[in-house]
Amino acid sequence: MIEKKEIIIIGCGAGGSTSAQFARKANRKSSVTIFEKDKYPQYSKCGLPYFISGKIKHYNDLIEFNENWYNKANIELNLNSEITDADFENKIIYVKKNNKLLQKKYDKLIIATGSIPNVPQIKKISKDNHLNDGIFVIRTLDDAKKIDKYIKKGKNATIIGAGLIGLEMADSLFKKGMKVNIIEYLPHILPKIFDEDLSKLIKEKINGYITIFTNYLAKEIEIVDGKINKLYIKNNENSKIIDIKTDTLIIATGTKPLIPTFCKGLKIGKTGGIVVNNKCETSFKDVYAVGDCTEYKEFITKKSINIGLGSIVVRQGITAGINASGGNYELPDGLLQTSTSEFFNIEVAAVGPSNEYLKNTSIINAKYNGNSLPSYFPGGKDITIKISVNEKTQEIISGQAIGDKAAQRINTIACAIFNKMKIEQFGKLETAYAPPISPTLDATKLTCDIIVKKINRNQ
Amino acid sequence: MIEKKEIIIIGCGAGGSTSAQFARKANRKSSVTIFEKDKYPQYSKCGLPYFISGKIKHYNDLIEFNENWYNKANIELNLNSEITDADFENKIIYVKKNNKLLQKKYDKLIIATGSIPNVPQIKKISKDNHLNDGIFVIRTLDDAKKIDKYIKKGKNATIIGAGLIGLEMADSLFKKGMKVNIIEYLPHILPKIFDEDLSKLIKEKINGYITIFTNYLAKEIEIVDGKINKLYIKNNENSKIIDIKTDTLIIATGTKPLIPTFCKGLKIGKTGGIVVNNKCETSFKDVYAVGDCTEYKEFITKKSINIGLGSIVVRQGITAGINASGGNYELPDGLLQTSTSEFFNIEVAAVGPSNEYLKNTSIINAKYNGNSLPSYFPGGKDITIKISVNEKTQEIISGQAIGDKAAQRINTIACAIFNKMKIEQFGKLETAYAPPISPTLDATKLTCDIIVKKINRNQ
Repeated sequence: MIEKKEIIIIGCGAGGSTSAQFARKANRKSSVTIFEKDKYPQYSKCGLPYFISGKIKHYNDLIEFNENWYNKANIELNLNSEITDADFENKIIYVKKNNKLLQKKYDKLIIATGSIPNVPQIKKISKDNHLNDGIFVIRTLDDAKKIDKYIKKGKNATIIGAGLIGLEMADSLFKKGMKVNIIEYLPHILPKIFDEDLSKLIKEKINGYITIFTNYLAKEIEIVDGKINKLYIKNNENSKIIDIKTDTLIIATGTKPLIPTFCKGLKIGKTGGIVVNNKCETSFKDVYAVGDCTEYKEFITKKSINIGLGSIVVRQGITAGINASGGNYELPDGLLQTSTSEFFNIEVAAVGPSNEYLKNTSIINAKYNGNSLPSYFPGGKDITIKISVNEKTQEIISGQAIGDKAAQRINTIACAIFNKMKIEQFGKLETAYAPPISPTLDATKLTCDIIVKKINRNQ
Repeated sequence: MIEKKEIIIIGCGAGGSTSAQFARKANRKSSVTIFEKDKYPQYSKCGLPYFISGKIKHYNDLIEFNENWYNKANIELNLNSEITDADFENKIIYVKKNNKLLQKKYDKLIIATGSIPNVPQIKKISKDNHLNDGIFVIRTLDDAKKIDKYIKKGKNATIIGAGLIGLEMADSLFKKGMKVNIIEYLPHILPKIFDEDLSKLIKEKINGYITIFTNYLAKEIEIVDGKINKLYIKNNENSKIIDIKTDTLIIATGTKPLIPTFCKGLKIGKTGGIVVNNKCETSFKDVYAVGDCTEYKEFITKKSINIGLGSIVVRQGITAGINASGGNYELPDGLLQTSTSEFFNIEVAAVGPSNEYLKNTSIINAKYNGNSLPSYFPGGKDITIKISVNEKTQEIISGQAIGDKAAQRINTIACAIFNKMKIEQFGKLETAYAPPISPTLDATKLTCDIIVKKINRNQ
């Protein structure tokens, strides 16, 4: 029999809100309460660039569940409610809401405080602890609203950071008619997700639209009339400094877990996140944590990583929600980090750690440039696939794709990695074929064949 | 050391031609010779409907490798060359070419004679063993050329058989401006591939374009001035007969293996195909067979099935080619029969046997109608997924999809079936998410969740 429980959730982002929904579904008797310090219920953070581009017409459209929805679902939602302290021993949290201090008992607590943007050390980036005019982070709905309002008068946008968000923002601002530059400190774009060769290919495809400066450090900002006017960047190789005319600067250099002081006593990992296991349990009994404030292990290396993908956040929310209400749900033994995006009309997707993260592993890989359709069929699109294999075990460890249906192709590779498939077996998978849809031997299979040939040659 | 071998291949369809290519690649010393009774080298049979629709401009475009290509690849291609007899004991075949009889010794023989269309018993369908004017099968390039020429004067097309080819032909003739009817004997369309519920959904989506008569038997043809004028069909339930104005009748009621008399001595299976194993070996030493003339086992049930998909034919060709030249290549322990098609702007795909073929298995399944994108993102497309699970083992046994990127979604399910994944595990696969590409929890995952819930309820 399932007992009635008092389940409290801190944070109403995708992680907290999904936890609440699944706690509610798994146990109809329990009381489920969310405290959110911001003024919005769950909205799509990943959707923010598309509100700025104009693809999504109104920021309200990004709100995935409104207050009424929580009400109907019998989930108590408290917005503008900040946790001031927590007593994990006695299972009490302290909340400030409408300037009143409340004290709440819980049976199960789920922490989903999310993350905050990294702001790099750049001269004159801020004044009195506030970013100067024309300089923005992009994390919350309010950030997006500010940018949307500001760019109406902007012409020259610069983005610091060539990760997924940086590139998505570049595309959005380009679509708004701005001239866009991206500054990346590392030698290649999307460094966390793609190997250098595929990263270069993506950069080439984008180059006609915007300018990307890789291997550059953002040094200093020139302020004129209280607003950004220029950004000075320094080449990491020759130390030359150049300036970039900028009226709108977007900081997209990643995030760090938001660990408020009430989290004291919970084990914090190397990456700065709350350590959670496959059940989203923290180091303290009956305290769960989910989402960007947590760390869990990567599937291939089993190394700790910060959570940063919406798909994982939601899966953790399901896990914590079910477990907090008395169920038993376990995440797999590590995260695949399957990811995708689309910018400048290119779909990209990847799964597994990029080669750079596997320096101690002997890797065999292959890249294949193919077409989405048989050569005789009109309308085929470019597709590039790269697969990497652990030379010793011959198991697939990563997949990267650029072009037609990249995300769905990567999902299939993700399934192969999840099953610890050897490359030879995966190359024997029967894939769907029809002239208007796919060749008899698709690009993924042909990539496998090249790797198998390399392995056989080495033996 | 790889020995020089005399490899002879009978048939230059996808199976024979692929065998030749892989035999050549695997052993540069061998002599590789193809005998093909028709006048064309390898062309895409699956592409024929798209030549008829006009999507592919010229039938020559369907020829995937021309004679010059075989020459360069050092493969001896003999067209218009028919095998009259074979002596498997003494490894000799007898060939008729240019009215001469040749005798050829082989070390390894690969038989790839393909299949021929089933022609149903319909009154007045043929005269003197020839189909009457306006009545066609669709199997060879010459069939397609004849249809292409004939339909220029046609208005009313009727197709017998609502399998993939029947529907592809319906779409092609519809695109040529014809009024199209399809007659299917069974109660639902695509009976080999889709369960009744998904089949009905496909039928509904097509209904605006053409008329489909399910549960009808084609009985008799009315000939006027030596040409077809009407087709009489009989309802299987109430025996009522109706007539359909028809100037062009396409027979698409499947094929049967073509087993010429020289194959005597080879084991023929229940389905009428040459029995082959996972190495494409027949019952006779050093004789291989590939493609539509063979039978092999299905992955889930291990029952014998006829080969009928281009994707499988090519994979058998690779297998036989490598093995005949001294290598060792094994197909998986059964065929998934992953398939796809597109007609009337709907993409459909499936893997594994439909529920009807699993009557002795206790099945739990679920169907989910979702969207390809998050609800807040404009431009999402319908997607329907159905997954079936063996109740006892909880392993996935089939997947069916209609809509956006159906084929790639089915490839992922195929990978899960191939790995004998339990539904709960597959539901935990991290899939790629980004607002313009996919929701956080995609339709496939949500289908899994429904099944897991059903299983838990039953326990």
